Amino acid sequence: MTKSNTAAVQPAEPAAKNQLFLGTFVHSKALTELEYLHNAAVCVDRSGVIVAVERDCDEVKARATLLPRLGWDEAEVKLVIAKEGQFFFPGFIDTHLHASQYPNVGIFGSSTLLDWLNTYTFPLEASLADPAKARRVYSRVIRKTLAHGTTCAAYYATTDVASTNLLADLCLAAGQRALVGRVCMDQLSPSYYRDSSPESAVAATLASIEHIRRADPTFTLVRPVITPRFAPACSFALMRQLGELAAATQLPVQTHISENRREVALVAELFPPSATGARDASYAALYDAAGLLTPRTILAHAVHLTEPEAALLARRGCAVSHCPCSNSALTSGAARVRWLLDRGIVCGLGTDMSGGFSPSVLEAARHAVLVSRHVAMGVAGGGSRGGDEKAAEKKESESESEEEKERAKLSVEEVLFLATRGGAKVVGLEGKVGGFDVGMEWDAQLIGLTMVDDAGGGGVEDEDGDAGNVDVFGWESWPDRIAKWLYNGDDRNTKRVWVKGRLVHERK
Amino acid sequence: MTKSNTAAVQPAEPAAKNQLFLGTFVHSKALTELEYLHNAAVCVDRSGVIVAVERDCDEVKARATLLPRLGWDEAEVKLVIAKEGQFFFPGFIDTHLHASQYPNVGIFGSSTLLDWLNTYTFPLEASLADPAKARRVYSRVIRKTLAHGTTCAAYYATTDVASTNLLADLCLAAGQRALVGRVCMDQLSPSYYRDSSPESAVAATLASIEHIRRADPTFTLVRPVITPRFAPACSFALMRQLGELAAATQLPVQTHISENRREVALVAELFPPSATGARDASYAALYDAAGLLTPRTILAHAVHLTEPEAALLARRGCAVSHCPCSNSALTSGAARVRWLLDRGIVCGLGTDMSGGFSPSVLEAARHAVLVSRHVAMGVAGGGSRGGDEKAAEKKESESESEEEKERAKLSVEEVLFLATRGGAKVVGLEGKVGGFDVGMEWDAQLIGLTMVDDAGGGGVEDEDGDAGNVDVFGWESWPDRIAKWLYNGDDRNTKRVWVKGRLVHERK
Repeated sequence: MTKSNTAAVQPAEPAAKNQLFLGTFVHSKALTELEYLHNAAVCVDRSGVIVAVERDCDEVKARATLLPRLGWDEAEVKLVIAKEGQFFFPGFIDTHLHASQYPNVGIFGSSTLLDWLNTYTFPLEASLADPAKARRVYSRVIRKTLAHGTTCAAYYATTDVASTNLLADLCLAAGQRALVGRVCMDQLSPSYYRDSSPESAVAATLASIEHIRRADPTFTLVRPVITPRFAPACSFALMRQLGELAAATQLPVQTHISENRREVALVAELFPPSATGARDASYAALYDAAGLLTPRTILAHAVHLTEPEAALLARRGCAVSHCPCSNSALTSGAARVRWLLDRGIVCGLGTDMSGGFSPSVLEAARHAVLVSRHVAMGVAGGGSRGGDEKAAEKKESESESEEEKERAKLSVEEVLFLATRGGAKVVGLEGKVGGFDVGMEWDAQLIGLTMVDDAGGGGVEDEDGDAGNVDVFGWESWPDRIAKWLYNGDDRNTKRVWVKGRLVHERK
Repeated sequence: MTKSNTAAVQPAEPAAKNQLFLGTFVHSKALTELEYLHNAAVCVDRSGVIVAVERDCDEVKARATLLPRLGWDEAEVKLVIAKEGQFFFPGFIDTHLHASQYPNVGIFGSSTLLDWLNTYTFPLEASLADPAKARRVYSRVIRKTLAHGTTCAAYYATTDVASTNLLADLCLAAGQRALVGRVCMDQLSPSYYRDSSPESAVAATLASIEHIRRADPTFTLVRPVITPRFAPACSFALMRQLGELAAATQLPVQTHISENRREVALVAELFPPSATGARDASYAALYDAAGLLTPRTILAHAVHLTEPEAALLARRGCAVSHCPCSNSALTSGAARVRWLLDRGIVCGLGTDMSGGFSPSVLEAARHAVLVSRHVAMGVAGGGSRGGDEKAAEKKESESESEEEKERAKLSVEEVLFLATRGGAKVVGLEGKVGGFDVGMEWDAQLIGLTMVDDAGGGGVEDEDGDAGNVDVFGWESWPDRIAKWLYNGDDRNTKRVWVKGRLVHERK
């Protein structure tokens, strides 16, 4: 279990007991709807599975009726009660991040994707072949993400098998659910950091898969994920062999798609359909020709997709990881999440460290709201058009574009859905994590906000030394409290974190 | 002095002694340049003024040569040493925020400016006529902003004189530099929250000015600011009378301009030039006709200005408060800061709580970078254009627009300039605060980042219970550390804050 500011990653506590959680529970019912369960009880059995969700239940009632009904010996049950104002929320799912790039968060200058890779990213990733450095960095990433409530993360490691395996081992030890991918890349990248052939890349991927299989034979907590970095860094032979591996193993796949316009142009240039047999020169068609578009495929970014590409992704059942912090920071573009959702594509959120600057999925959710407003402003009449007001003055289409504008905006409820249930579907854990339904596993966080006292002080009701920046005055509705958390919350509000019933992080 | 999580606002410590600060100092030299002074000494006299800045100086050398040169008795000097890795940075200047709206941060749903005012804002502001509520809210705002390193804030209060005066008193007591404005509005707003006539609004403004003059006769720390809310909420008679008051008193003026397209259209509709004598129907021309465009005028937002309006603002010497969090959150637009700077307009940053969601100027600076990238993406070929790729394919103008795109982006250095020296100019304190030059006053913050240990733990070198989210591995250059702070820093990194030499906030 990690604690804030004690050293490194420590083994998570085993969930030796049945557990009874009491208080307020908030989770997504649907894309646009959060459900608030007040004075509720959630029972989690020894294996970490939710076996009962009971409304209108306090400790007395739970002991009198609920525990007997489950046949639980009350002396053996661990009781966790959320304090007044606190609430349980599903753990966050980070559907895209590079564990190996964590030391570079916030460092990108004015670069965009392709120069950023060469200047900042490849040198750092290559250096993690040093096992001591890899241990230091990966331990820190796991600790940071757990502290921010990330109970499941889809990690890219590096090309190095030993340190990729170490990342998987550290996730297991810390109790974080994870997809861990050994990065494959046999072209374009610098010679010091590149697979020597498609075959060696596949062999290295297999070695990492086998390691994880030994460490977690049923992939209960940690799963391998087939990881071609992105098309420009992979030969078509490599992509095709990884596609075959995905078909043979039925393992998930993760890669990037259509992040940046130059990258899209480069892909069309590097991979003419005549050489790949793809139906056209689009990014999606290329991956499809390689067999990489599966129902278990996670595609990060998807900023500049065309209609036919979106239709193809939807047909193949691929999921998209939306990474708003990264897309803004690297001037990649503003992904049209509503447009993707409208086309039936499953979406979740990714921090995309270190293209993204923050380890927090809550911050990614906040930026998903803001970026959706920039998408809305890009719809006719937006304010970022350099003073060209002609579009705004086309009155005839105004009400139509106003409606389209409104639709482009994501709500608080929607981004929190993407951060939990949406993410669960992206990483293939739909119905298993992301909400508080009977039969799901207890991947959860306990959230506490600051109650401002009468003198304008705060943190009074909280034994935590620093209660963070979400100030509740007392008159706010629950939806307003959730909005306040989304906009000003940070790891200080995440008091405890559980994965599969095990306590994996606790503040202080 | 405020301390984190102790109750309410307390009087700042008097700076009874001469002070010697030792360590690393970072401040803006110019818009695009931060200066790093390592192993330096800064001497601040009893009145809070910087009297010496000495490079290559440690405690021994300071005692041997610097203090004697100043004629300071070393037994009487208070010594403050930044620890390894820590640095002193100028205090932030928040050039636009509504103290009265603080309880609503993060609460705006999908509203835009005009419905947001009616739904969320006016009811809350009106309720602060209750002095107990006003004291609670204003105490909290001052404490929060100081904790985030805001040494000077340009506040809007409400229409209520008594609670506006209370805000000024609380700023004085806490030692925060402030402009405090009693809000004037005699139309459009609901009947329960409106001045009954221009004359009563002016009388109320005068009453608040006189209160502040009694409390701080030389306006050393707190100054009154003439505050017409924004054009739609003011009759032309009111604006003109406030313009006359500004001319007569030479006091600063603050208001909003061109935040939202509907507001701009409403202004043109409400104030035909025939009725005001303005040269045209533009927002800026209206304010100019009222005499509100002075060299001491702070205009918030300025998102949708036209070329002639920008030229007018530049001619009048008005300043703009750029509020990126607010503009994105309320779908107002993306202000073109480079475009404003190119036209010679002075710019600073505003949190604009609660249109903006965060009390942190550092967060405003971060969003200024990101919004500038959305502005860049709006320049031909941007990614937020709903799949219309025709613009991107106009190859002939590509390199030109690429250059324009690059120029639109603000750098780390630039947004930190806006947050300090830029803000100082906006609020009329240029040369007095915002940097570490001899003759300036010591408005400063001590910043500490987290040093990650070999095991991937952190906070080890820090006695603070929670060192925040800026992880330094040790190999980062100083500019990279500053970038890390900009992107992941929060109030946990602001260890101490001084205004005019007085310690006004300390963590723990």
